[in-house]
Amino acid sequence: MSKIVAFIGLGNMGGGMAVNLIKAGFQVNAFDLMEANLKTAADAGCTPMTCSKEAVKNADFIVSMLPNGAIVESVYIDGDALLDVIPDTALILDCSTIAPANSRRVGAEAEKRGLNFVDAPVSGGVAAAAAGTLAFMVGGTEANFETSKEVLDAMGANIFRAGDVGAGQVAKICNNMLLAIHMSGTAEALQLGMDNGLDPKVLSEIMLKSSGCNWSLEKYNPVPGVMDGVPSSNDYQGGFMVDLMLKDLGLAQEAATASKSSIPMGASARNLFNLHKNSGSGGSGSKDNGGKDFSSIQQLYSRD
Amino acid sequence: MSKIVAFIGLGNMGGGMAVNLIKAGFQVNAFDLMEANLKTAADAGCTPMTCSKEAVKNADFIVSMLPNGAIVESVYIDGDALLDVIPDTALILDCSTIAPANSRRVGAEAEKRGLNFVDAPVSGGVAAAAAGTLAFMVGGTEANFETSKEVLDAMGANIFRAGDVGAGQVAKICNNMLLAIHMSGTAEALQLGMDNGLDPKVLSEIMLKSSGCNWSLEKYNPVPGVMDGVPSSNDYQGGFMVDLMLKDLGLAQEAATASKSSIPMGASARNLFNLHKNSGSGGSGSKDNGGKDFSSIQQLYSRD
Amino acid sequence: MSKIVAFIGLGNMGGGMAVNLIKAGFQVNAFDLMEANLKTAADAGCTPMTCSKEAVKNADFIVSMLPNGAIVESVYIDGDALLDVIPDTALILDCSTIAPANSRRVGAEAEKRGLNFVDAPVSGGVAAAAAGTLAFMVGGTEANFETSKEVLDAMGANIFRAGDVGAGQVAKICNNMLLAIHMSGTAEALQLGMDNGLDPKVLSEIMLKSSGCNWSLEKYNPVPGVMDGVPSSNDYQGGFMVDLMLKDLGLAQEAATASKSSIPMGASARNLFNLHKNSGSGGSGSKDNGGKDFSSIQQLYSRD
Amino acid sequence: MSKIVAFIGLGNMGGGMAVNLIKAGFQVNAFDLMEANLKTAADAGCTPMTCSKEAVKNADFIVSMLPNGAIVESVYIDGDALLDVIPDTALILDCSTIAPANSRRVGAEAEKRGLNFVDAPVSGGVAAAAAGTLAFMVGGTEANFETSKEVLDAMGANIFRAGDVGAGQVAKICNNMLLAIHMSGTAEALQLGMDNGLDPKVLSEIMLKSSGCNWSLEKYNPVPGVMDGVPSSNDYQGGFMVDLMLKDLGLAQEAATASKSSIPMGASARNLFNLHKNSGSGGSGSKDNGGKDFSSIQQLYSRD
Repeated sequence: MSKIVAFIGLGNMGGGMAVNLIKAGFQVNAFDLMEANLKTAADAGCTPMTCSKEAVKNADFIVSMLPNGAIVESVYIDGDALLDVIPDTALILDCSTIAPANSRRVGAEAEKRGLNFVDAPVSGGVAAAAAGTLAFMVGGTEANFETSKEVLDAMGANIFRAGDVGAGQVAKICNNMLLAIHMSGTAEALQLGMDNGLDPKVLSEIMLKSSGCNWSLEKYNPVPGVMDGVPSSNDYQGGFMVDLMLKDLGLAQEAATASKSSIPMGASARNLFNLHKNSGSGGSGSKDNGGKDFSSIQQLYSRD
Repeated sequence: MSKIVAFIGLGNMGGGMAVNLIKAGFQVNAFDLMEANLKTAADAGCTPMTCSKEAVKNADFIVSMLPNGAIVESVYIDGDALLDVIPDTALILDCSTIAPANSRRVGAEAEKRGLNFVDAPVSGGVAAAAAGTLAFMVGGTEANFETSKEVLDAMGANIFRAGDVGAGQVAKICNNMLLAIHMSGTAEALQLGMDNGLDPKVLSEIMLKSSGCNWSLEKYNPVPGVMDGVPSSNDYQGGFMVDLMLKDLGLAQEAATASKSSIPMGASARNLFNLHKNSGSGGSGSKDNGGKDFSSIQQLYSRD
Repeated sequence: MSKIVAFIGLGNMGGGMAVNLIKAGFQVNAFDLMEANLKTAADAGCTPMTCSKEAVKNADFIVSMLPNGAIVESVYIDGDALLDVIPDTALILDCSTIAPANSRRVGAEAEKRGLNFVDAPVSGGVAAAAAGTLAFMVGGTEANFETSKEVLDAMGANIFRAGDVGAGQVAKICNNMLLAIHMSGTAEALQLGMDNGLDPKVLSEIMLKSSGCNWSLEKYNPVPGVMDGVPSSNDYQGGFMVDLMLKDLGLAQEAATASKSSIPMGASARNLFNLHKNSGSGGSGSKDNGGKDFSSIQQLYSRD
Repeated sequence: MSKIVAFIGLGNMGGGMAVNLIKAGFQVNAFDLMEANLKTAADAGCTPMTCSKEAVKNADFIVSMLPNGAIVESVYIDGDALLDVIPDTALILDCSTIAPANSRRVGAEAEKRGLNFVDAPVSGGVAAAAAGTLAFMVGGTEANFETSKEVLDAMGANIFRAGDVGAGQVAKICNNMLLAIHMSGTAEALQLGMDNGLDPKVLSEIMLKSSGCNWSLEKYNPVPGVMDGVPSSNDYQGGFMVDLMLKDLGLAQEAATASKSSIPMGASARNLFNLHKNSGSGGSGSKDNGGKDFSSIQQLYSRD
């Protein structure tokens, strides 16, 4: 008999993830506050539920994919707490990207009730969610991590254990902050080269084989025309939105303030992406660049 | 019969480079203002010359490796200009790391006299100079670039043409600025992770397989104990000195000011390395961290 | 008959403030979780109460001075909420420095119960609290602001209305962020001058009469020996601690993230103060500079 | 009999300054490469000269007001050096804003020839030049400073001696860097306040009376409508151009690189002004904000 996954939150990301669970043979009891999302999930083979409490009733796994920490806390622990009705044989996997402090609070409340919890934020966007090639950074006990892989393997290609509860969030925050730093650094270095007469293709090739090499330069060159099939060569459409990068940089900032850490480069990156967000030229009727791919930070440096 | 290379500037880098030319079968007419450097070069098979003018007389190639732009200009074009006595059949390769504007000035003066000139700054330190595995970023005409390879192949492993005269310097500046950015970003991300309870080895492994991946993380992890055989695991000895990175970041800053480019991340990096240079704990009798490897920027972030 | 002020939180700041209320003729019903603080207040003429609920019972005003937003929320609205027992004729003044969002949450809960609330964070340190010369930045209705002045005039010299509930916190955050920016900017400009051979006294006099003039330069010169009677001339003792400035810069960062504002200079200042906090030379057995006056940021720039 | 001032460089600034010398009773022998400038000066009572050598022949004072250090060096010391024909009884005042290193080079060459030289860069714009209310920051010996006042008093309101030759430039650079820092800090604090619901007038009034007070807030509020008669209330026309501030921040950067000083706030300011320069909305047919008053940095922070 199929194992049951209760899936809560079926937006762009969650919807794709749930489908991959169906494909892997799980029974997916799905719930979302938006009727349309629920309908799409049902069409794809999920069993639509009328509320989250009903969804988790007989579940072996609970997977949640929610927009922010306040909502995650409100679903699991506030008021009519979902944690109060989850069976103690189940494993809870919260795949939302939220502050480590929020994950730890939910994890501690789960533990009080004898429940198993891991945070498992994802890396990779909507396309990877649909393709089942997400990366998961997991925080939880070694045992819960092992158990979680049964579900995560169905949705992702790389599953890492970062440490105890909350560590998944920390790993994701650190990685994405570093990504923002080398993406803006790459844009800045390429622009400095162009401003001094270099061809961005030639400069990119040189740096790729030198100590300036990094993921942004290798997979995701931000200058239009240098690389095919990346957002920069498609008017910065698709990919990973500026607004989502700003969310992650905000979480990095929040974590750094709490742990009294210095993040001068990460803070610079947040402000550059934020200045970029607000400097939209309004060509498409909007001044807001938040919906563009994050490699569009190149436009902040450019004079054209 | 062997081709003749006039080699001017036989310090830590130039000395090693000259030896590789000898090994490759060139006759090396060597000159350095310091007697000791000249002696070492002679012992290695170079022909010591009494002045730079004598050295270049019958040379097929002139290679210079000098500390800064003022000295390069003074040797080639000021007063008793070396350019006035270099044979017009020779190719001049200036391997010094200097401002693009200095290279262009020397290049223009060479052109006036019908001489061939390329700038060819190197990447890789003293060890790579000795091993003959340097990278060269060359600025000059396509024809001069082709000619230059006969000499550069003997001293390096990667030879790039970045564009016309001065472009080699621009490429090096851009690459090293980007390196400084992702090195300090990597140090910052790893420290943020550690401050929030993560093991730097685990976090490094996760980011290496994710979008945070970059050369600093892959080849040169700045946290002691994470990687073997790198400066961070040897008390930040050896490698690429903070003072040299600061020189390159100063050149990047100078180029950006001249081209009216914005380099917020590069400027942050320069200031962080400079604050680090001046925050030495004085353990070894000095407050100056400038002689440590540049991955020691990790110590600026650390609280220990 | 004297009006009654319930005073909650009698630490270094609150203790001094309560004494000034006594001097102005108020009856002060005092409460603090620490016995010692309560004893000191009682010795100064306050009436010690056994709990906060008892303190507020017949109060005309409630003044709270608490360390952070979580504590303020927990006192007023969580669990056994103080708001449930405060008389609706009273005015609540929360003088704690907390996030505007926290103030607004408490203000909204007060309003639900028909209670009057203002946030009134202070500027000026322990000495100003004792001297009754604090500045108050008040958020609340015009009517509540007028009422608040009866109490605030007894404790402060400058009382400003910044806007509605929460606006007092916003004003304080903005002011202190700007203070941090021009203090570090002043330290940096003076160091740049000294590094280029200028006498900091002479440079300070010139900038005081020029467009570089600012409060830090005028009242609080950060270079030892330039000005008498300021912390820089007293080994950076006394004044406004680095740790407190970091708290305010953390709140500014939190507010900016929430309102999606760009604060590149404020973020730089936070990171510089944080790097400074962690770069203590350990002379006094501690590596932590957090207890020094914030003008000690000069030491981060200095090479001595 | 009138004393003679040779005035070299009669642009927007120099032209106004020369007129004030005429008003004060000096004979002004004027020279400028542009015929139109020379004509305007002649109309105002200056004696137009055919070349700079002729201008300085019988001069008691030489005043130069030139666009950059390369031009200053080329006029005084390169090739057909003006220093070779200046009478040794004269005092040379270079009022150009250039790098301290350039001033020192010219000063040293003057000294070699037994000539008296001070650098005396100005603060205050075209209006102050015309009104004779400039500030001068003078570098030179005490004796030369005293002599210089005869001329400077006729053109300015505040005359400071900053130290020896070059110190005038250093003082100006430090002052203007600090100005750029508190102007962008002020814009940022006001925007953070507005983004959180505050009225910029109210917030400005509060900060003016608090520790956030600075020259930008007091004399030059960057938010349109807060203050009358300032550029922000005149569409950022007039005042001190972004391009000129960028020139000074470039000089500050150059000086800091040379003296190995850390200027994280100043470097941030340079990059913010540069990003602002290049983010022009093109309303007036140009994408370049460089011609606006520097308080227009507010627009970089704004979302409108």
